[in-house]
Order: sequence, then C-alpha cells, then structure tokens
Amino acid sequence: MANNTFKEIAEVLLKAEKILIYPHINADGDTVGSAAALCHTLRRLGKTAYVLVEDELPSNLRFMDKGYFTFDDKVIEHPDVSVCVDCGDFGRLPKRKEKFLSAETTLCVDHHGTTQNFCDYNYVDPSAAATGELIYAIIKELVPEVDVETGEAIFTAITTDTGNFQYSNTTKNCHLIMAELFDLGVDTNKVSVQIYENERPEKLMITTKALSTIELFGGGKGAIAYLTLSDMAEIGAKPFETDNVIGTLRSLAGVEYAAFVKEKEPGVIRVSLRAKRMGDVAKIAAALGGGGHIKAAGCTLNMTIEEATAMVKQKLSEAIEAL
Amino acid sequence: MANNTFKEIAEVLLKAEKILIYPHINADGDTVGSAAALCHTLRRLGKTAYVLVEDELPSNLRFMDKGYFTFDDKVIEHPDVSVCVDCGDFGRLPKRKEKFLSAETTLCVDHHGTTQNFCDYNYVDPSAAATGELIYAIIKELVPEVDVETGEAIFTAITTDTGNFQYSNTTKNCHLIMAELFDLGVDTNKVSVQIYENERPEKLMITTKALSTIELFGGGKGAIAYLTLSDMAEIGAKPFETDNVIGTLRSLAGVEYAAFVKEKEPGVIRVSLRAKRMGDVAKIAAALGGGGHIKAAGCTLNMTIEEATAMVKQKLSEAIEAL
Repeated sequence: MANNTFKEIAEVLLKAEKILIYPHINADGDTVGSAAALCHTLRRLGKTAYVLVEDELPSNLRFMDKGYFTFDDKVIEHPDVSVCVDCGDFGRLPKRKEKFLSAETTLCVDHHGTTQNFCDYNYVDPSAAATGELIYAIIKELVPEVDVETGEAIFTAITTDTGNFQYSNTTKNCHLIMAELFDLGVDTNKVSVQIYENERPEKLMITTKALSTIELFGGGKGAIAYLTLSDMAEIGAKPFETDNVIGTLRSLAGVEYAAFVKEKEPGVIRVSLRAKRMGDVAKIAAALGGGGHIKAAGCTLNMTIEEATAMVKQKLSEAIEAL
Repeated sequence: MANNTFKEIAEVLLKAEKILIYPHINADGDTVGSAAALCHTLRRLGKTAYVLVEDELPSNLRFMDKGYFTFDDKVIEHPDVSVCVDCGDFGRLPKRKEKFLSAETTLCVDHHGTTQNFCDYNYVDPSAAATGELIYAIIKELVPEVDVETGEAIFTAITTDTGNFQYSNTTKNCHLIMAELFDLGVDTNKVSVQIYENERPEKLMITTKALSTIELFGGGKGAIAYLTLSDMAEIGAKPFETDNVIGTLRSLAGVEYAAFVKEKEPGVIRVSLRAKRMGDVAKIAAALGGGGHIKAAGCTLNMTIEEATAMVKQKLSEAIEAL
C-alpha cells in the first residue's frame, strides 16, 4: 500500500475533533518529541488531543509534557482519529491496541523499515532519520507557523534519533530543519541540557557498573555487556538510565557489533544491538523475534541472562565471521 | 584593529608560495580540522604547505593527516606566510613562536574571545562556533569547489567544537554548512566513527577511574573530579584519553559548574572548567591565569593536585554563591 501525502494526513487531522496519539513503549526522544509536537499543534488548532502512554516517560524527556501525556485511556471516550508515531506494530503499543482500533480513523507516521502500512492512512519513510522529520512536514501542512514549543520537540526527536547528527541515518534534510528551527528562535542548547545534562548520579553509577562487565570477542569486533535486576536494585537506577551503555560499547576501536543485555524481569531479557559501519543488526534482531534499524535494533528473550548473553554472543560471532 | 575580510585573507594566501600553518597545543578537532582543511586546499592550489606542531595529535584525529602535519620546523626554511588557526596567543604555540614570526606575513584565524588581532592579517570572530566555520569561508574564496576531504575536516572542526551541535555556541550557520557538506558528498558518519568510535579500552578505563572520584559541592551545583599521574600510568592511558570526563561531570542534574583536575607533570596541574547554562568559566579561568570560552575554559596551575583541587573548588564555590 502506498503512502498517503503529508497533505492528505493533515486533512484527516484538520477534519477531526478528538485525537489520541500513541508513542511506542520504552519511549525515546523521537517518539516523545513527535507526539508532543503533534499534540501541541493540534491543541493550537482547537482540537481535543492527548498522548496515551502505557509506561513511564524517561525523566529527561518529561519537559515536553505540558499536560499532553496520560495513562488514562478514557481521557477521550470516542476518538475520531488514533495516530501512532514512530511505531508501526501492536507489539509496540500492546496494552493500547484495542483503544487504538476503536477510533473511526487510524493513522501511522513512522520511519521504521519493518513497518507495514497497516492503518487507514499511513506515512512510513525509512529514509527519514527520525519520525520527527515526518511530523514536522505534517505540522507545516497543519499550521501557517510552527511555534517554538513545537520546534523544541522536533529538535529533540531529530537530535536523539541521529545520535546528535553523527549516525549514518543523518541527512541534509535534518540540518535544513535545524536551520529553520534557529529561525523560529528555538534554543537548542536549552533543550540539549534538558535531554543530556540532567542525569541522576545513579545513571552514572549504573553505566559504570554495566561497562565493568565488558567482554570483547570475535577478535575484538564484538563487545557485550550486561546488567542484572539486582544491579539495578542495588544502585536504585531506573530502566531508562542505562541508555548510554550500548553507544559506549560500540565506540571502542575495532568493535563492529555491540550488544547490551539487560534483565527486565526474572527470565525476561531485553537485548539492544548496534552495528558500527559494516554490519546489519536489524536482521539479527528479527531472527531473534525483534526488530529495528540496520545500525540500531533490539529484541526481548525469555530465558536467563546467562543464556541470553550466550545466545547473543553466538549470533554476533556468526555475523562477525560473515563480515 | 578591525578584522580583514575573508577575501583579503584569501588574497594573501593566493599570492604566497610557501605556507606554514600552526594549530594550538593540546590539539582538538577544531584546530586540527581547520589546519588540515586549509593545508589540503593550499596544496590543491599548487602551494607548498605544511602544518607545524609541537605535540602529538590525538589518535582519533590522525585520519586527517595525509602527510600535512610535521614536527620539523625546517620543512619550510623561509615561509612566505605563517597562519595560526584556532589560537590567538603565543602561549598556545610556545615552542613555535620564533618560527611563526620568521614568515614575511603573519595571519590569524580564530574564534576565541580573548584573542587580540596580533598578526599582519586577522580574522577573529567570537560569534563563530568553530574556527572551522571561518576557514570554510576562506576556502570558498580560495577555490571554486570545496572537495570531500576538505569537507570531512570542516565537519570535524564544527561537530567537535559544538559538542555535536548541542552547545550554546551552535548557530544556524553551522547547520547550513552541514547541508552544503552533504551536497559535496561528505560521509559524516564515516568521520564520526573515526572521531568518536575509535576508542581504546584504556580510554574507557581512565574515564571510569576519573568518574569514581566525583565530588559534588555547592548544594549539588558544583562537580569536581581528578586524576593523578599514577592513575594515568597504571591504566596506560594517553593524555587526550581523558577528554570525556568533564562533559560527563557537567551532565549531572543540578550541576552548573564542573571542573576536572589532572596532574600533567609533578606539580603541574591542568584544570578544565565547564559551565552549564548560567555561569561563565572564561572569567574564572582568566583569574587563574588561563582562558577560553564562557562555557568551556581551562588553566594550568603550578602546585600539588590536592592544592589545585582545593583552589578550584573554592573558586567555583564562590561562583556558585554568586549565581
């Protein structure tokens, strides 16, 4: 099914009165920024709009929630439109699936290559660095002038999903949008400080703990580290406070594949995978029942952390052999 | 003394045959990127051009040295022009001062607020995020088409000096230059991997060691950490491998001032200072005999590391009181 145009999607939203927006679970800057930017803009247009979530937002992203985000799925009883942003399957909004489908019209805006056009209206573009780029284009169809608050959320979406303009998904368009945001008066440093310089000491401690477990393998081309539930409890770290670990693993000289293995619940292991220049972790994650991008993907395994670590090491070793 | 124009500076370079370029000591991405971009462009024009250094380049920046950088001050006996890039006083090129002044014409391109126009020709613009921005403008006057190698060096200069487009010095112009570099075909991710994802495990270990010494003070608004010569020796870390420490200190919630104190030689202590949103470390560094930018500055103290740590804590505590 082909994509709709930005204009068609904007028209659906302009006709609607009550809109619920759905970011993915384990929210990141792109999904929260996209949701906040869209919700704010829809409210500027006089719509009733909320962002429905099912898990806690990372604390460094909460600055974007100006009364938009809610756990209450009755906040709008009968939505005209459900919009999922940066997520393209129900595994990423498991507890909200029924509510999502209860809207008269469904709409998906996403940049994941694995997403099928499964809604009534869709804009799925894997060449976009961030869903925030697509949401920005839609917002420009919705309102004559993007405002600063929207610009801050769009900056957040794009800067976080491009690794601050360093990842291979970064495009000329990302920088052109940034230039426009400067014209709007967006203070990107103020936002960066909120995203990146607002860390609890516990985050530093849990990161250091994880990095102390580093194991290199595959002739130094693979790096893996892990954290157990008891590590998390001892330090008092929050789940999203481990998000720097995987990037640091990948940053080591010679490493082409990195994995971070984390016990979420007893017997439930979350695996984050990264490739540097040569590899493709989307495939590996898919083979393990997960998904994502070529250079950044993940999956969830139901086994012990020792078993998961061994399995991931095995898969990455095979991928390293094939490089 | 007013700045010259980019065109005037380009004309001086176009008339010259033998040019020596001078980056500052303790080289960073901006000074190395600026020097490499300029040297490469001058050679494209058929000039004899070299970059004269007096200390080792950080290993993650060496990819830009395609036979340009040398310790040999006789590589050009009688230079027509000396150009210092990203440095504006002889304290930043101490062992090369005489050679610098031996050229027929001297030229300074810099963005440090403390720099006086001390050369025959000068372009000093503290509103530029990076000296690389200014060098890029000069290069556009020198050649009809900037090439990919030059673009990679300019990307390095700008991305490193803006903290990957997150610091408050970042401007619209930085992003517009990036958009142009994409048009040239610059692979920014390839360069990023060379700059940031090429770390020795020793770097990770020395960073972790430094962060284990964190002390918060001033009601959590100040953070300080230190490393001794014996820490460096035990881990086998290189001097430039501690460059992530100060940013991590500043990233803690509530911290407005951060300091990293490092023993360079017995009795010689290098101090790196950072301010987050409110403070000004240029002033504090200047009061201690150093210099730099409002949000990033440094100084060298001749005392023991314990004395230096106490003095810096005292200065920052006073600054915190005044916030």
